[in-house]
Amino acid sequence: MASVGEVMINKQVILKHFINTAPKESDMVVKTSSLSLKVEPGSNAVVVKNLYLSCDPFMGSRMKKFENPDFNSFIPGSPLEGIGVAKVLDSGHLDFKKGNLVWGTVGWEEYGVVENPENLFKIHHTDVPLSYYTGILGMPGITAWAGFYKVAAPKKGEYVFVSAAAGAVGQLVEILKNKLGFDDAFNYKEEHDLDAALKRCFPEGIDIYFDNVGGKILDAVLLNMRIKGRIVVCGMISQYYLRQPEGVRNLLNIVIKRVRIEGFVVVDYVPQYSKFLEVVLPLIREGKIVYLEDITEGLENAPAALVGLFNGRNIGKQIVLVARE
Amino acid sequence: MASVGEVMINKQVILKHFINTAPKESDMVVKTSSLSLKVEPGSNAVVVKNLYLSCDPFMGSRMKKFENPDFNSFIPGSPLEGIGVAKVLDSGHLDFKKGNLVWGTVGWEEYGVVENPENLFKIHHTDVPLSYYTGILGMPGITAWAGFYKVAAPKKGEYVFVSAAAGAVGQLVEILKNKLGFDDAFNYKEEHDLDAALKRCFPEGIDIYFDNVGGKILDAVLLNMRIKGRIVVCGMISQYYLRQPEGVRNLLNIVIKRVRIEGFVVVDYVPQYSKFLEVVLPLIREGKIVYLEDITEGLENAPAALVGLFNGRNIGKQIVLVARE
Repeated sequence: MASVGEVMINKQVILKHFINTAPKESDMVVKTSSLSLKVEPGSNAVVVKNLYLSCDPFMGSRMKKFENPDFNSFIPGSPLEGIGVAKVLDSGHLDFKKGNLVWGTVGWEEYGVVENPENLFKIHHTDVPLSYYTGILGMPGITAWAGFYKVAAPKKGEYVFVSAAAGAVGQLVEILKNKLGFDDAFNYKEEHDLDAALKRCFPEGIDIYFDNVGGKILDAVLLNMRIKGRIVVCGMISQYYLRQPEGVRNLLNIVIKRVRIEGFVVVDYVPQYSKFLEVVLPLIREGKIVYLEDITEGLENAPAALVGLFNGRNIGKQIVLVARE
Repeated sequence: MASVGEVMINKQVILKHFINTAPKESDMVVKTSSLSLKVEPGSNAVVVKNLYLSCDPFMGSRMKKFENPDFNSFIPGSPLEGIGVAKVLDSGHLDFKKGNLVWGTVGWEEYGVVENPENLFKIHHTDVPLSYYTGILGMPGITAWAGFYKVAAPKKGEYVFVSAAAGAVGQLVEILKNKLGFDDAFNYKEEHDLDAALKRCFPEGIDIYFDNVGGKILDAVLLNMRIKGRIVVCGMISQYYLRQPEGVRNLLNIVIKRVRIEGFVVVDYVPQYSKFLEVVLPLIREGKIVYLEDITEGLENAPAALVGLFNGRNIGKQIVLVARE
C-alpha cells in the first residue's frame, strides 16, 4: 500500500471466470494495480478506502452468468462487488466529503472509486462497531426487519421458523438455543426427515416461515403451516447452484391453509432505512440484541472467507477486515 | 317421486367407496329410498326439494379419503354433497319458511333434510335464472370476485392470466376469445411448451395469475411473472389425483420478481356475499357478463355430469337440473 504521489498501490479481488457451482477460491484471484486517489474534475464519483467488506450469499449468485435482466452478473477480470464500510478520501459529490464514513456497494479492493455514490449511506452513529454496518445495521439488518415486520407482519403469540438462522451454519444449533434465545433449533443438513423435525419443534404448526433456503425445507414447511400462515421468501440458498432447482410438491397447502408466500428484495425498503435505525440502534445500545460476527483479516483472505459461507464455515456474520481506519 | 302420505320416494346419488383417481361413474350409484317431508318437532332443520345441483371440482377431492382435518371427505354409503338451488318444503328454522328459494350446501338427492340451515342463503332476486345461484351468483361467483378483486387487487393496465378459464375444458379456446372477450387463450393440455405459449400470449409478462390448475402451468407462469406480480391460488386441479404432486421448480422467481402467492378459500368471503351481489347483479341484468351453462337433466345423470368435469366435457358451468320448481 505504498503511496506513489497521488497514486496508491491497490489490492483487488478479481473474478477469474463465471461459475456454475458454489464459488471456490480458485474462481477468484487477488491482484495488485494502482489507483489515483483524486476524483477526476467534473466527476461526481467518490474515492473510498475500504475498511470492512461483507460476505453475502448473493455474491455467489452474481458470479454466475445470469440470463435474467433483473440480475447483474459480476464481470470476469473485474473486482467483485459487495456491501462494505469505507472512508471517503476524495469526493466529487455534494453529499460526501473527505473523512466521511459510509456504507454501501463497493468493490472488493483496498481503495476504490464509487461511480454511483447514490448507493452509499453516510454513517452518523459511530458509538456502535463500524463493522455492524455490513450486517445488523446494513443490508442484512434492514432485510430481516422488512421481511419480518413489513412482509410477514407478525402477531403476538405466533410461531416463527427461520431457516439458515445461523448463517449458512448448521452446527450452530446450540448457539441458536443457548445464546440467541431461540426456543428450539435443528441442523437442516443433518435431519433426514425435515417434516418430523418441524413437527417436533412446532407441534402446533408454523405461522411465519422466514425462508432463506428454499427447496426441501420449504416443501416440509408447507406441510406444517397453520391457517393464514405467511412464508416470506428472502432467498433460497439451497437452489442457487443446482443444475435444475428441486421440485416443491406440497404447494396445495397454499389453498388448504390459505397461505401467503411473498418474495421481497431489500431495495424496496431502503427508503425506510432511517426508520429502521430508530428501532434497532437503541436495542443494540441496550444490549438487547445478541449479534455474532466472524471477522477475517486482510483482503488477501477475502476469497476464502466468501467460499466459507457456502461450506457453513462461518459462525455469525462473515466480514473481511480490510483496514482499521 | 310418488308421495306416500308425508313420505316421498327419494332418489339419491350415493358414494360407493373412496377413490384415489379422478371420479368415475362406477364410484357412485343412484339409489331410491324414502324420506319424510316434515321436519321433526324441535329440530331446526329444513326440508328442501332440490332444483339445481352444481358439479364442482372440489367434490372430486371430497370423494378421496382425506387425512387432513381441514377437509371433510364424503361418507361411503351416503349421498354426495354439493352446492344446490332448492325450494323449502318445511322448516324448523326461524329464518326459512315453506316456499322460500335457497342456495347452499345440499345432498345430491331429489329431496333432502338440511341439518345446518346456517349454510343456506335465501334467494331474493328471481329476475335472473335460478340456476345462476349455483354459479355466477353463488360459490364460484363469489370465489372469482374475492380472488380477483380482494386477493389479487388488480390495477388498471395489468396483464391477467386465468388457467382453466373455460372450466376443465381446453377445447374452448375459440369461445374464450370470440365470445367471452379474452385477448388470447390456449389449451394447456395441448401445448407441449407452456413457457413458449405464455410468452406468445404475454410478451410483457404476467401481473396476475389466477391459478385453478397448479403443477406444470404454475411452474411455467413463475418464469413469466412481472415484478410485484400476484398469483392467487384458487385450486390446483391438475394435482388432486396424482400419487405424488408434481414438483414446482421455478419458485426462485418469487424472490427475483418479488411475487406474492396467496391461497384463499371462499368461506372467508361469504360475509361479503350481499356486497358481491350488489356488484354482479346489475352487470348480469345489463347483459355485461357473458355466462355459459352446461345443463344436464335428471338426477340419474348427475354422476356422468360430475365425471365429465374431470374429462373436460363441459362447456361452461356444469349443472344438473333435478326439478323445475
